[in-house]
Order: sequence, then structure tokens, then C-alpha cells
Amino acid sequence: MRTEVCERFGIEFPLFAFSHCRDVVAAVTNAGGFGVLGAVAYTPARLEEELRWIDDHVGGRPYGVDVLVPGKIDMAGVRPRMGDGESTAAERAGRGEGGLDTMLAAVPEEHWTFLAGLFEKYEVPLPDFEKAKKTRDAESMGAQVTKEGATALIDVSLAHPIGLIASALGTPPPVMVEKAKAAGVPVAALVGTAEHARRQVAAGVDLIVAQGGEAGGHTGEISTMVLVPEVVDTVAPIPVLAAGGIATGRQMAASMALGAAGVWCGSVWLTTEEAETPPHVKAKMIAAGSRDTIRSRSRTGKPARQLKSAWTDEWEGPASPGSLGMPLQMIVAEGAMRQINKVAESGNEGARELANYFVGQCVGLMNTVKPARQVVYDMIEEFAGAVDRLNTITEAD
Amino acid sequence: MRTEVCERFGIEFPLFAFSHCRDVVAAVTNAGGFGVLGAVAYTPARLEEELRWIDDHVGGRPYGVDVLVPGKIDMAGVRPRMGDGESTAAERAGRGEGGLDTMLAAVPEEHWTFLAGLFEKYEVPLPDFEKAKKTRDAESMGAQVTKEGATALIDVSLAHPIGLIASALGTPPPVMVEKAKAAGVPVAALVGTAEHARRQVAAGVDLIVAQGGEAGGHTGEISTMVLVPEVVDTVAPIPVLAAGGIATGRQMAASMALGAAGVWCGSVWLTTEEAETPPHVKAKMIAAGSRDTIRSRSRTGKPARQLKSAWTDEWEGPASPGSLGMPLQMIVAEGAMRQINKVAESGNEGARELANYFVGQCVGLMNTVKPARQVVYDMIEEFAGAVDRLNTITEAD
Repeated sequence: MRTEVCERFGIEFPLFAFSHCRDVVAAVTNAGGFGVLGAVAYTPARLEEELRWIDDHVGGRPYGVDVLVPGKIDMAGVRPRMGDGESTAAERAGRGEGGLDTMLAAVPEEHWTFLAGLFEKYEVPLPDFEKAKKTRDAESMGAQVTKEGATALIDVSLAHPIGLIASALGTPPPVMVEKAKAAGVPVAALVGTAEHARRQVAAGVDLIVAQGGEAGGHTGEISTMVLVPEVVDTVAPIPVLAAGGIATGRQMAASMALGAAGVWCGSVWLTTEEAETPPHVKAKMIAAGSRDTIRSRSRTGKPARQLKSAWTDEWEGPASPGSLGMPLQMIVAEGAMRQINKVAESGNEGARELANYFVGQCVGLMNTVKPARQVVYDMIEEFAGAVDRLNTITEAD
Repeated sequence: MRTEVCERFGIEFPLFAFSHCRDVVAAVTNAGGFGVLGAVAYTPARLEEELRWIDDHVGGRPYGVDVLVPGKIDMAGVRPRMGDGESTAAERAGRGEGGLDTMLAAVPEEHWTFLAGLFEKYEVPLPDFEKAKKTRDAESMGAQVTKEGATALIDVSLAHPIGLIASALGTPPPVMVEKAKAAGVPVAALVGTAEHARRQVAAGVDLIVAQGGEAGGHTGEISTMVLVPEVVDTVAPIPVLAAGGIATGRQMAASMALGAAGVWCGSVWLTTEEAETPPHVKAKMIAAGSRDTIRSRSRTGKPARQLKSAWTDEWEGPASPGSLGMPLQMIVAEGAMRQINKVAESGNEGARELANYFVGQCVGLMNTVKPARQVVYDMIEEFAGAVDRLNTITEAD
């Protein structure tokens, strides 16, 4: 295909693949698309390793990095009690002071208690929360959600020959735009409304990803079918990628009929051979229909679409203390999910009921495990078929 | 255009227009599309008048009728109190006995009280509920939601030269399918999941309308972008129309790229010149963005997307007694909305805040009032442009 985005990014197909897994990123890039590594789960040192591995495996072909840069700390659900140690931590955390330790201290005790109750109910061995809070794991969970952590990831990324840096959530801060421009790297940002898109363009973003509410992960409520034409009209001539629910070539053709310059897919890679999705979660995804997702705050503190599971049932249920804001809920949930996945892999039934992961409604269209390369080729072939079908309709006039 | 659906239904464009307004139905049919009259608001006598008018204005071109056939009476929110008159009515209504009077008697007093409070708060003169309950208006509100009422509408419809009869909600009952088949009229049905589509085909439906959650009116949660390919794959070779959020030619092209045989649009006609949408509601729609809708039970008892307004804020708010099931909530809401619209037209500010109507997220794309005929022509022109753009991308290979 020859499109403006293909020219500009040096790719064969305007198919951008968001994945936390370096193998997927490299496979998509090598197949003619554009892999984007989600850096949110990595420490700077680990990200450096991952990017070095990608550099070694893509032979100079283009790829990018996606960084989640936090806004202000959301203290929803935290009720500071004046005069005790917790309230002091909550207040400091609310002001963004003190880093991870302060944030950990700001998590209300009732949330740890609810979590402990959940582990007991589903007969999952309780992790040592106190120890977990202090471990490197806990640090890597928390690091990326501070502004300093995100800036370190941006610096590591820009030291590699990346072709795009993306902001997964909210308007990229000036530091990201400035550093990227200085390095000659285009900046992308995900948006869920036309108004957000307008703000992103004003902030200097070069490529808008319009992500509909059917998407996996953090998402709004406007559907891809409505959002894409609205955003395209709002930010023209800035190119717009369509995201949200897209896992097939028919949907890629549909997106481009809507005016998108290409597509940004995340969910579809989770069931590829390369994906590091835990096997029990991958099996759930292959079995799931499009109705089996829910938009819930229970993993990150912001509404994020994910597989329905006992985890979302319980956090959305009547006994729940309610989700905290971001990043506090993330700190509560991620440590628990590590333990749940670890135990689920060894066959624990309760842990398997609880386990889930972020995924879009297109999980209903993800029914076989295949190599990421094959997903790209299948999408391109189906895309061509869809365009041919449309031609048959109009040519007969 | 030449498609299977165009051949079968004798139309130029596979564009189906659902509207409660006969002028829109005739305008779309005369422009080469297929108008479908929503009969839910009509008594049999009134429907007879409307269809006779359409027959006189379409010169034999094809049109259809959409009938809402109720399932069982949903008694959600009604708590029968043994031993008093109301409980008896509730029990009888729950068994589907006694028709409209029983249903009216089954509405809990707290719902009428909440409604009266709402009218007071927004300074809208209270209608005489007791009188309203007894009027012909109330009868027409309630008639269509009984099985007998719906059957009468089906009989009236099939006595006209209609080209399609559609079931707006749920699987069409055997009586509808049998009568339609006997009359040689194809049956369509709206679905929100692939599983529903499978059931509809088993019930004898000839044309499936796969309606995404961004649609106006009764709607599910799966988006058009995901639902359409899923349903197409599920019911092939039965033709599938895409619905939900579609108001432009780009979206029509996108829908057909997804595998749909055409589109079914409802919202887009509400801001046409012909539409009988109250002027204050039409003005709200023209001003609204795609974020200004909500899926709420507050008008019919089932989740239906509509404009956010003081009405939805209050019924979804903390002081609300909660919506009843269908059709009881419909009986409560429709009488109130008639009064609200009547008063709003004479300039009452509170009534204007309360007023709303069913509309999809594509309300954000509906920004000018034009004739329905022009909407058809603009969609077809934009459709052709979108197909051309896709061709430019692939032809360069």
C-alpha cells in the first residue's frame, strides 16, 4: 500500500501494533507493519534491554515506544484521617511527594483487607503484601506511574533509533514533546474524544490515535465508528489512526473508509504465539465472546476494558470498597495479579477464576493462536478482499 | 449500486431508514433507499392512516413497517404488597392479564410521586395524571406494548403493499413470522449480539439488523465495529444490515467493508426537515456532541440510548426510585414526556432541560438540518468518495 503514513513512517502497511512484548513488536515491524512497545511495565534498565533486543532483531526497520505519563495523582477513595500516619502519607501522595513509598502508605487499609478477603474466598495463597510492597516488583509497578519514572523511560527510548513515541493516556507533557522533537521523533497520542484530539494537536502531537470505547485498556465511551470520522474532521490534516475493537482486515478497511490513515491494534496480539500473555488468560481470550469484557476501574483506577472475571465481579460487586484512583489502585491490583497469575499457572482454580487482562470487545473475533506475522498477513489479505468487495458494488453502476 | 439486497428489495441504495415520521419514510423511499415506519407509537387506526398516506406518496416504491412486539411484562421495581388493590393489579399485570388498566394500576405510587416532584422542581405544570391515565393518549401509549396491540399493528401493516416487516426488540413471535410469510413479506429483526442473531434466523427472520451499542434507542453494549463482522460470520448467507452510530456515507462504506449488505439508520432522520422531532429537541441534537448521550432505562424500562438531559440525570440520580421494567416505565415516562414537550414548546425553561429523545452517538455528526432526500444523496456521494479513497490506497501497489 502507498499512503502518506506508509511513506512517512517507512512501512508497507499502515498497521500499528501496540504490545508489551518485544517479540510481537519485532514480528510486526519485520512483517511490514509498525510495532510499538508498551513501556509502562518496565524499569528504565529493563526497557533498555528490551529496546536493545528489538534493535538487534528488526534490521533497522521502524518501531516505536509507548509511555504512560501520569497526570496528577488521583486520590479518589482515599479519605485522609488527620493526625495519623496514613493521613500524612495520603496528603503527601496527593501532592505527588515522596514517590512510591508514600503512595503505598496512602492506600487505605480497607483495600488491603478486601484483597486479603478475596484471596481467602478464592483459596489463593495470600502473598506477603508487606514484603511485596518492598520488593523490586513493587518498585517496577510503581516507578512508571511517577513523572520521574516516565521521564526516565522517555530518555531511554529516545536513545534508540525509534520512529515514534506515543503517550498512552492524556496529553503528552511538554517534556515528552520537547525531547522527541529535539530527537526528530514524531509524537503520537491516544484520544477518546474529539475535544481531546484538539488539545493533543495543540500540544504538538504529530499522529492521533482515535480509540473507541470498545478498545481494551483505558478507554472512553464513544465508539470507533463514531469517534474516527469525528476526530478526522476535527484535526485534519493531522493523520489519524483508528483504534478500538480492530482485529481483522475487514475492520482495517472499515477504519480507512471512515477516513483513518491506518489502524492501531492492541488486543489482537495478546493471543499470538509470541505474546507473553499467561496461558490461562490466553485460553480465556480464545474462548471469550465479544460480551465477555467490562469497562472497570479495578485494575488501574481509571476505566479500562478487560476480560470479565471473578476479579471484576468482586471489585464491581456490593462488598467492594470501590476502586481507588490511579495510580493507587494500580499498586493494589498489580501485585495481587502477579500472585494470581503465578498461582493460576500451577493450576489453582480460584486464581484462574480471578485472572483477567485488558482486552477489547474484538476478543470475540480472536479465536485461534497464530504467529504475529501471520496476523499481519491475514489482515492485509482480508483488507484487500474488503476493498475488492466494495468495488464490485460500485463498479456495477 | 447493484447488491443482492438492492435486487431483492427493489431499491437503488442499500440504505434503510427507520423513522416514526411518514414524511421521512416516503422521502427516503422516493430517493432510492428503503423507508421503514416505526409503528410503536400508533394505534391500529392511526397506523392505517399513516400507511395509506405513504401508499399515496411513494408511487409503488418499496417501504416497510417496524413493530415492537413485547415479550413478557417486566415487573422489575414493582413490589406487590399482598392484600391491597395495587398488589392485585401488579400480580395480574405480571401475568399479562387485564391490559392497560391493570398495568396502570401496577405502577407503584412512589414513581408517580417522584414524577410529580420532578415537575415541581423544574417548574413544569403538573399534568392531570389521573385524567392522562384515562385518555386516548394513554391508551395509544399502552396499546402497542401488549401482545394484542402488536398483533393488530401487524395485521394493519400486512394489508398494505409493504416490502418488509421488522421486529424492533427481541425475536419476532411465531404469529408475526407466520403472517408475514403467508403475505410473502420478508421479516427483519434487530439484534445486539451474535447469539441473538442465531436465534432470530432460527425463528425464520430473512434480514438481520446488527445494531451496535452506540445506536439510539434500545441497544446492547457491543459496538458496531465488532458486532457487524461477528454477526455476518454467524448468520451467513443471511444478509446483515449494519446499524448503530451510522449517519454518513463514510460510515456506510465502513459498514459494507465489515461485510454488511447495507445500513439501517435511525438517528440521522431526527434532524431532517421532515422529522416531527419537537423543535427544542431538534435544536439540542444539532448542538450535541457524541458524548451527550446516555444508555438509560428511564424512558422505556429497557436500556435505551438517548440525549442526556435533566430527565436522565434525575432518573439515574440518587433520589430516583429507579426505573420500572418495560412497559410500566414507558407508561410512566411517555405521558410525562408529552407534557414536557408541550410545555417546552411554549418556552418553559425547566421543560427544555428535561426534554430529550432517543438518539445514537452519531448525534455528534448531525450538525445541520436538511431534507431527508438530501441526507440520502449526501450519504451516497460520500460512500462513493470513501470507496474511491480506498482504491487509491490499493491501486498504487
